[in-house]
Amino acid sequence: MRILVLGGDGYLGWPSAMHLSASGHEVAVADNYLRRRLCREEKVNFLYEVPDLNERAALWQSVSGHQIAVHIGDLNRWDFVADLFKKISPHAVVHYAEQPAAPYSMLNRKAATLTLRNNLSVTANVIFAVREFCPDAHIVKLGTMGEYGTPDIDIEEGWLEVEHKGRQHKFLYPRQAGSLYHTTKIMDTDLLWFYVRTWGLRVTDLMQGPVYGIFTDETEKDERLLPFFNYDEIFGTVLNRFVVQAVVGYPLTVYGQGGQTRGYLNIKDTLNCVRLSVENPADSGELRIFNQFTEAFSINDLAERVREAGNQLKLNVKIEHVENPRIEAEEHYYNPIHTGLLDLGLAPHYLSESVLLEMMQFIIKCKKMIKKDQIYRNVKWS
Amino acid sequence: MRILVLGGDGYLGWPSAMHLSASGHEVAVADNYLRRRLCREEKVNFLYEVPDLNERAALWQSVSGHQIAVHIGDLNRWDFVADLFKKISPHAVVHYAEQPAAPYSMLNRKAATLTLRNNLSVTANVIFAVREFCPDAHIVKLGTMGEYGTPDIDIEEGWLEVEHKGRQHKFLYPRQAGSLYHTTKIMDTDLLWFYVRTWGLRVTDLMQGPVYGIFTDETEKDERLLPFFNYDEIFGTVLNRFVVQAVVGYPLTVYGQGGQTRGYLNIKDTLNCVRLSVENPADSGELRIFNQFTEAFSINDLAERVREAGNQLKLNVKIEHVENPRIEAEEHYYNPIHTGLLDLGLAPHYLSESVLLEMMQFIIKCKKMIKKDQIYRNVKWS
Repeated sequence: MRILVLGGDGYLGWPSAMHLSASGHEVAVADNYLRRRLCREEKVNFLYEVPDLNERAALWQSVSGHQIAVHIGDLNRWDFVADLFKKISPHAVVHYAEQPAAPYSMLNRKAATLTLRNNLSVTANVIFAVREFCPDAHIVKLGTMGEYGTPDIDIEEGWLEVEHKGRQHKFLYPRQAGSLYHTTKIMDTDLLWFYVRTWGLRVTDLMQGPVYGIFTDETEKDERLLPFFNYDEIFGTVLNRFVVQAVVGYPLTVYGQGGQTRGYLNIKDTLNCVRLSVENPADSGELRIFNQFTEAFSINDLAERVREAGNQLKLNVKIEHVENPRIEAEEHYYNPIHTGLLDLGLAPHYLSESVLLEMMQFIIKCKKMIKKDQIYRNVKWS
Repeated sequence: MRILVLGGDGYLGWPSAMHLSASGHEVAVADNYLRRRLCREEKVNFLYEVPDLNERAALWQSVSGHQIAVHIGDLNRWDFVADLFKKISPHAVVHYAEQPAAPYSMLNRKAATLTLRNNLSVTANVIFAVREFCPDAHIVKLGTMGEYGTPDIDIEEGWLEVEHKGRQHKFLYPRQAGSLYHTTKIMDTDLLWFYVRTWGLRVTDLMQGPVYGIFTDETEKDERLLPFFNYDEIFGTVLNRFVVQAVVGYPLTVYGQGGQTRGYLNIKDTLNCVRLSVENPADSGELRIFNQFTEAFSINDLAERVREAGNQLKLNVKIEHVENPRIEAEEHYYNPIHTGLLDLGLAPHYLSESVLLEMMQFIIKCKKMIKKDQIYRNVKWS
């Protein structure tokens, strides 16, 4: 299949592009390096340097023999989007091209405005481009489990059958998110669902949990193919950040009571979920929703597991409960269904001590690069 | 109270500004004349000429003795918004400043993009400005009954108590709209609800049905104070359009079977609903939602009532069922609750034959201005 990966420079975008390419697909990526620019502006560094997309694609070709076409440009601009879709005419579009960090979206008005405009405008352009240039293409959109929030009932997989005063209706599962970033993903879902119904688009909306990990089957060929890796509070996902904190002797910063529970997954599983979705497309006129995670943990669980793994390496890991800068329930019911991707064939990589040890051993090699003052910044929600 | 009316040039914005001013409030309006520009671009005329905002405000002062301050500028621009809020420091903000037409939002990609960007970006700017300059101000936001769509269960007033697998949760009522315009209003609600929870804003979100009518208590002082009035398919609301069609002998264009049912209200009731909301503010941290309409009618009901009134004036009104250009259910369950505004003291002006006759008699005086070829344009949803 011809697959266009939007946001192909990102933490998940680049590994997804390689994985799809290794699986025999013809892959093109597009990116405007927004994430790199925002990291520079916010003065946070990646754990290690990463080559640019053209260098990565050349490297990938040299180790795998597969080409990945690279297109650098801003997907907010219709002329760039139109040219891209006309040229590639993809069978599937994997849409990662959003500002992806909740704390960034809560930093200040400028960051909030960028998040809102960028995320909505790129999603709208993707919809219009598919409609105009490749109406049968399947859009695989990265959403987030965070769209659901933490309701006091089970989180079903995208939809909710409601019985009310003796009548019934099946609704899109009601959404209520905990950050502006997550709220833009709700809006994306609103938008996609409207155009699925109206224009008969094919869409898979992946409600993904926080991802952890560094290595994929494809990165084993050359360390320079690793995804970029943030360990700061703004762009670093929690488990990745905790592992770095453990390595440099920075207490694991648990927000509040630490009972906040979410569904997590290994980066390898993200790639498999995306590939399985692409290879088993949604029907025309279908919004297919999967809850994309493999295991639920509380923040306390994660901190404890990182401490135990750290002890194996004599790291003497400390856990510190800090005042919660976010507005969120610190103890809550959480039971999300997640069978759709398992039914498609997902074979999960669960979080084991060996996974944590492999990450820690690699991070220890990068230890000199880590800037401790970037880890915690206390971006407040209110 | 000091009240800032955003979109104060509009069909409802200007009458609301006068009504609030007549009720003893200190009123300022802001507008960039977007609606007038879009009407020019789409080559549709108002039923009669209307003065610009400065002329209207001067006229209003001469007949009422009350001042309305006029600010012309684009609420997408933060510098304009910031200056406005700093200067006025309102107690209440009435937010009408959106592209308001469903068919316009479905015209083409450019119109869709304008609707999406304008509506979301103005709402976000209003939220940020209230947070920064007047955090205790009450935002009264015009939403739409169209956010709910036509689910097969009762439409409650904003919220839905769900029982599921033996547990319970109260959700924002799940929304699913029938046009991009209506979908942007869902997104507005998502955004407002997030910041109400996070920043403790005071918000009233008015789920308004289609409005009809020309006259208000304030317009009686001078015909030049009338709101602008569209009778074209793009910007004209259905009952207003039908009355014009009846007057010029253009068959009433019922889409499909005509069983599409919605909640309607007289423009006088819109003004009272907005005033009652402003004068009884939501609490800090409260998103208060009212379903703002007074009576539900099917399109067939409306057409029949217009025909009957037309017969009184010997107008020989014909009804024509045309192919439905929209994607919507033409027969459906519809039972929305609407008690909140009645509880606040709303005394409805119901749709009577005399209301229709008063409109028709006025429109007959404007008959020479009506351009029949602007009435029906067949903007298709798909």
